[in-house]
Amino acid sequence: MSQLDKVLETLDSDRQGALDRLFELLRFKSISTDPAYAPDCARAADWLVAQLQGLGFQASSRPTAGHPIVVAKAKAARADAPHVLIYGHYDVQPVDPLELWTSDPFDPRVVETETGRQIVARGAADDKGQLMTLVEACRAFRANGGLPCDVTFLFEGEEESGSTSLPDFLAANAKELKAGLMLVCDTNMWDRETPLITCMLRGLALEEVVIRGASRDLHSGMFGGPAVNPIHVLAKIIAGLHDETGRITLPGFYDNVPELPEEIEAQWAALKFDAKAFLGDVGLSIPAGEAQYSVLEQIWARPTCDVNGIVGGYIGAGSKTVLPAQASAKFSFRLVGKQNPQAILETFRDYVRESLPADCEAEFLSHGASPALSLPFRSEAILRASRALEAEWGRPAVLAASGGSIPIVGLFKRELKMDTLMVGFGLDDDRIHSPNEKYELSSFQKGARSWARILSALAA
Amino acid sequence: MSQLDKVLETLDSDRQGALDRLFELLRFKSISTDPAYAPDCARAADWLVAQLQGLGFQASSRPTAGHPIVVAKAKAARADAPHVLIYGHYDVQPVDPLELWTSDPFDPRVVETETGRQIVARGAADDKGQLMTLVEACRAFRANGGLPCDVTFLFEGEEESGSTSLPDFLAANAKELKAGLMLVCDTNMWDRETPLITCMLRGLALEEVVIRGASRDLHSGMFGGPAVNPIHVLAKIIAGLHDETGRITLPGFYDNVPELPEEIEAQWAALKFDAKAFLGDVGLSIPAGEAQYSVLEQIWARPTCDVNGIVGGYIGAGSKTVLPAQASAKFSFRLVGKQNPQAILETFRDYVRESLPADCEAEFLSHGASPALSLPFRSEAILRASRALEAEWGRPAVLAASGGSIPIVGLFKRELKMDTLMVGFGLDDDRIHSPNEKYELSSFQKGARSWARILSALAA
Repeated sequence: MSQLDKVLETLDSDRQGALDRLFELLRFKSISTDPAYAPDCARAADWLVAQLQGLGFQASSRPTAGHPIVVAKAKAARADAPHVLIYGHYDVQPVDPLELWTSDPFDPRVVETETGRQIVARGAADDKGQLMTLVEACRAFRANGGLPCDVTFLFEGEEESGSTSLPDFLAANAKELKAGLMLVCDTNMWDRETPLITCMLRGLALEEVVIRGASRDLHSGMFGGPAVNPIHVLAKIIAGLHDETGRITLPGFYDNVPELPEEIEAQWAALKFDAKAFLGDVGLSIPAGEAQYSVLEQIWARPTCDVNGIVGGYIGAGSKTVLPAQASAKFSFRLVGKQNPQAILETFRDYVRESLPADCEAEFLSHGASPALSLPFRSEAILRASRALEAEWGRPAVLAASGGSIPIVGLFKRELKMDTLMVGFGLDDDRIHSPNEKYELSSFQKGARSWARILSALAA
Repeated sequence: MSQLDKVLETLDSDRQGALDRLFELLRFKSISTDPAYAPDCARAADWLVAQLQGLGFQASSRPTAGHPIVVAKAKAARADAPHVLIYGHYDVQPVDPLELWTSDPFDPRVVETETGRQIVARGAADDKGQLMTLVEACRAFRANGGLPCDVTFLFEGEEESGSTSLPDFLAANAKELKAGLMLVCDTNMWDRETPLITCMLRGLALEEVVIRGASRDLHSGMFGGPAVNPIHVLAKIIAGLHDETGRITLPGFYDNVPELPEEIEAQWAALKFDAKAFLGDVGLSIPAGEAQYSVLEQIWARPTCDVNGIVGGYIGAGSKTVLPAQASAKFSFRLVGKQNPQAILETFRDYVRESLPADCEAEFLSHGASPALSLPFRSEAILRASRALEAEWGRPAVLAASGGSIPIVGLFKRELKMDTLMVGFGLDDDRIHSPNEKYELSSFQKGARSWARILSALAA
């Protein structure tokens, strides 16, 4: 019997123990955004330290300007094993409106439903249930000959309130925390039978543009006609950014945008993503992105340019015959592949400047930029995790992307130069941040087994 | 010696008397916007009543919800003479900042300057000095055989505070006030030697458009790409309203826009309007209107379409990755000739609807519409007034237009179906509404002579 088989057997035989431990963690009211719950956050951190010390980890709760960060380290059974940093967060969202909960959010219970048993509590899915899948996997290894990888746990207590203390903490402890790969268990499955690895996160570049024309607001009776209208100039700039097919017109914009590998394209097509339902849920029916790509590709794998806000002239009730002196808009670019945020912003600024009448000027305000993050679909980590998940779930893992950024993944990439393997067992209907948050019991149990298989595969 | 010659001689010989009377009127602190000066307004109205009664007019001060309106009527010496309604206002703007006045605003004086003598006081030009040119002209006719026209004076006391009581007053007294032509002396000359008749006022149609896409604001990470962005839709609508030459693209928009008569075009060209200085004063250098028209034509004789305000999405500090559910803009059209405001708004709404993706919708909010107002350049009233002014000033009157609307002209047109002849003797440097307001003594004296000539010409 292999070590992994023994580990899986242990996980199966200790299901009640694992659930009891998760329930203990769920009972802490670790609401990070409300200072009244700071002692609860500290107690949750201490509980994790005690748990990990019990598993032979060197663990401590480190003070920060906010809530403590738990760091725990243990070596693998063999030398020269790979080193993984496991990220999670023990804090949770507030529970209001409390009256919509069917039971106390901090008194976890298992509820029977038609689709299976669910753990109902604040934090069940986000992120206490998910982080405990990794702790339980490590526990089972310790009971069966030791860890397959060097493991560092890092659990923060401010993810739900902006991870305020984390950047300084990473900078101050970079050497201690640096590992070969980060594992994050804070994402979802494709559906309740199909595991998913999030391989790519789109990047983001944010730029505000202020267009200025006349030196003051003008009366449209006196000046309407000959005086340039900055709102018109801005509208033309916005309208010129996309062609009729939804493609972005900036020169070289698509230079570093990779086409999907054929097998990924085929896999995504086979998912039969219900684009109609996806758009229909928000009252839309016509995909607005690049016409030659599917809706799923438009979200997961294609870059975008959007105006997130625009303002100019008179915006109160009624009317005012003013020709405004300025108008402004906030632009954002979602980036993929190797697109360089700074180069794209430079091209954008050139385009804006070239679009200006000679008596107008543009001011640019940058609100941050970060490149896309990805583990190549064919990388060793993805391939190993993928096989491990298939072994557990009996079907291939979806190699997916996420249209949005996940700030901590970018943070670890910048501060520690680490790539992240994102695997999680949440479901879209877990009601995270909402009343009656739940985590499927199967997610918890098969999640721990999945991580056991992944940790084993990464070390093989 | 003709009646007109005698009238002009009387005006010349009674210059001091006319100035004394104007000074009396200027001493009333008839600031309409400040209730503290309501008694002063009433006294100014009473003074006008007494003056006009002294000239044989049936005159009275009529109470309103605000300040009184003076109405005075007198018949011409001969029967079947034309009937003119003369509009003016006896109220003035506040005087602050008082410290910037070089003398008491309500203690009028004549000041010698390099360019001539000036009457300095609040209301000297706007509108007490101007309205008294008409009163003095009538006085001189009464002293020399009688009025050439039936004359009704209407002097309001709320022009500087919104003419609040006037619409109801006109509606209630329409039959009494109706005349063949309205005369208004509240406009400027082209320069200190060149008289000007304002023949056209642009109309105005105001329409707000709200574009709605998704049923709620969306996260641009989750939906960026496939979800339509109402700001982009709106920008495209705005950008599509003008072609590369500044021409408005709405079908049929120019159908009822008259080309200028050749002689007017030639006259305007001969004015050598300094477009560079006009735009330079507000920090601009490049005319933005229809490329084939001069700046003066763009303001006076060409229609426009402008966005006066736009708003959508996040407009606070920094950035927010939102795809807004809606965006809106306030549009205004300046209209000329026989352009029909309702027809143009209908064409505009059709254009907006046709520009919408099928899953977006537009809401329209109308904020009022009024057609352009004009006396045809070749109309009898313009021709007669023009010849009269040329006789007085020794050069042809500029037949001009005004890019903005003058609310009371539209009001009389709507309520009493009357056209308005706008002649005035103000200058651009009269500092109306500002400290040290002045009216040229020559404007006052030659203004009265000009009206004598015009009244005589209208009756000829």
